[in-house]
Amino acid sequence: VVDVHAEPVCVHAAGALERWDGRRGPGNLNAWAAMARAMALARAHTVGCVALANTNHWMRGGAYGWQAAEAGFAALCWTNTMPNMPPWGARRAAVGNNPFVAALPRAGGHVVLDMALSQYSYGALAGHRRRGEPLPYDGGFDAEGRLTRDPAAIEASGRPLPVGLWKGSGLALVLDALAASLAGGLATHQIAPDSLQETRLSQVFLAFDLGALPGAEAQAALVEGIVAALQAAEPAEPGRPARYPGEGVLAARRENTARGLPVEADVWAWLAAEAGPAPQS
Amino acid sequence: VVDVHAEPVCVHAAGALERWDGRRGPGNLNAWAAMARAMALARAHTVGCVALANTNHWMRGGAYGWQAAEAGFAALCWTNTMPNMPPWGARRAAVGNNPFVAALPRAGGHVVLDMALSQYSYGALAGHRRRGEPLPYDGGFDAEGRLTRDPAAIEASGRPLPVGLWKGSGLALVLDALAASLAGGLATHQIAPDSLQETRLSQVFLAFDLGALPGAEAQAALVEGIVAALQAAEPAEPGRPARYPGEGVLAARRENTARGLPVEADVWAWLAAEAGPAPQS
Repeated sequence: VVDVHAEPVCVHAAGALERWDGRRGPGNLNAWAAMARAMALARAHTVGCVALANTNHWMRGGAYGWQAAEAGFAALCWTNTMPNMPPWGARRAAVGNNPFVAALPRAGGHVVLDMALSQYSYGALAGHRRRGEPLPYDGGFDAEGRLTRDPAAIEASGRPLPVGLWKGSGLALVLDALAASLAGGLATHQIAPDSLQETRLSQVFLAFDLGALPGAEAQAALVEGIVAALQAAEPAEPGRPARYPGEGVLAARRENTARGLPVEADVWAWLAAEAGPAPQS
Repeated sequence: VVDVHAEPVCVHAAGALERWDGRRGPGNLNAWAAMARAMALARAHTVGCVALANTNHWMRGGAYGWQAAEAGFAALCWTNTMPNMPPWGARRAAVGNNPFVAALPRAGGHVVLDMALSQYSYGALAGHRRRGEPLPYDGGFDAEGRLTRDPAAIEASGRPLPVGLWKGSGLALVLDALAASLAGGLATHQIAPDSLQETRLSQVFLAFDLGALPGAEAQAALVEGIVAALQAAEPAEPGRPARYPGEGVLAARRENTARGLPVEADVWAWLAAEAGPAPQS
């Protein structure tokens, strides 16, 4: 599925927008190159866009938001996926959960949103099931079409909820149509519905050169003010203020740096069996 | 709040992106002009962006998606609003429900998504309350912090749910930050939390000139294929296939053209009292 030696290539340049062919290369390297190129286009045109066809799973999409924010750019990017979510009103997967990323730089920690369009990812469902925990909110329909917080019931029915119900379903369709149209690539319904065969994805990377606009100091103060207003909102649980997108990633990185990466016990056991004993620390 | 004589003006041109000052003019006229200018920029650069500050409520945001799609462009646009939704984890409104629009042209009916980031708008809550109908799905928290389908309880608590819970809350924050940053305008926390005083909004209009890209026929066929795949998905209720974004608007327009515009009885009574007797038909 992945040609590990392939490198992406520009197939059509049209001003501030370019089409790139990912040549089925590694999805994370293709996405990184595409965001870098979108930023170069934004340096020339203030806004730059790369539409990337024939690529593979970009792994953690937020990475390309962090990439842009680190360089002082605002960014939007999204990907389509194989069909993995029923559209609102249907029983079978026919749209993707098409992760969407939006980012802005901020001195005290970048604002980076990274959201798939299903309320819970299949990874999150599996994690809750393995830990024997119900979902905190309804996550999908069971086989009888009832809303449920039972992760196993949603895995079995294949009916995760879109974010915002009919709204996320519509957003998934239009992001797919935009990505495939701009990239000249495949749409969700043309992608094999098998996570081991999912390939030839279409993605869009938009970068905005904030440095080309007047008032950089005012803009930085504005983002600070937005975060401060969020944190000042009366919390639903005392002592737990609302968090801005990206705040949790920073906190997790600090904890992981200090204490190591958490791995679920059965995953660790599988890794240890595959790789031999864990090194002694 | 609205200067009915004001016209928007470009205050900074930077390649494919321009900042415009809406001068507190009529929001719908400002938004129309901004999308028209974004399309002109896209004709020159393939992607064009207008960031608009100091504007007013754009009324039905989908209109600017239809405007772009009618002209053969794909488009994204969004607006911030006054604080009208608690961020996830907070009890008081501190983010906007920041409507987001995405559109593509399609011969048989454009694909136009127009979604606020609250699951139900305050207008929808009021409509359900007046009709004495519960919401079909949880729409917010009541005063005790319990999820509820009672529209009046959500109006009283001021705690509508964001689409996708924590996800829509994060999306609202980042769309606000992007709009205010690109436009050099106000962010949600700087806007008066009073629907009669809500002004100086920030908005972003992005247009993509699909005609500048190779393969226009293939692109049109692609969007047809996406809609066909959606409509072919097994419906949850027999005979009611999933609908693409914009399909309901077309259906409503046909019905309204044939039968007239529906108005709720008490609204009609109020209008009739204000305006005198309804004309005899």
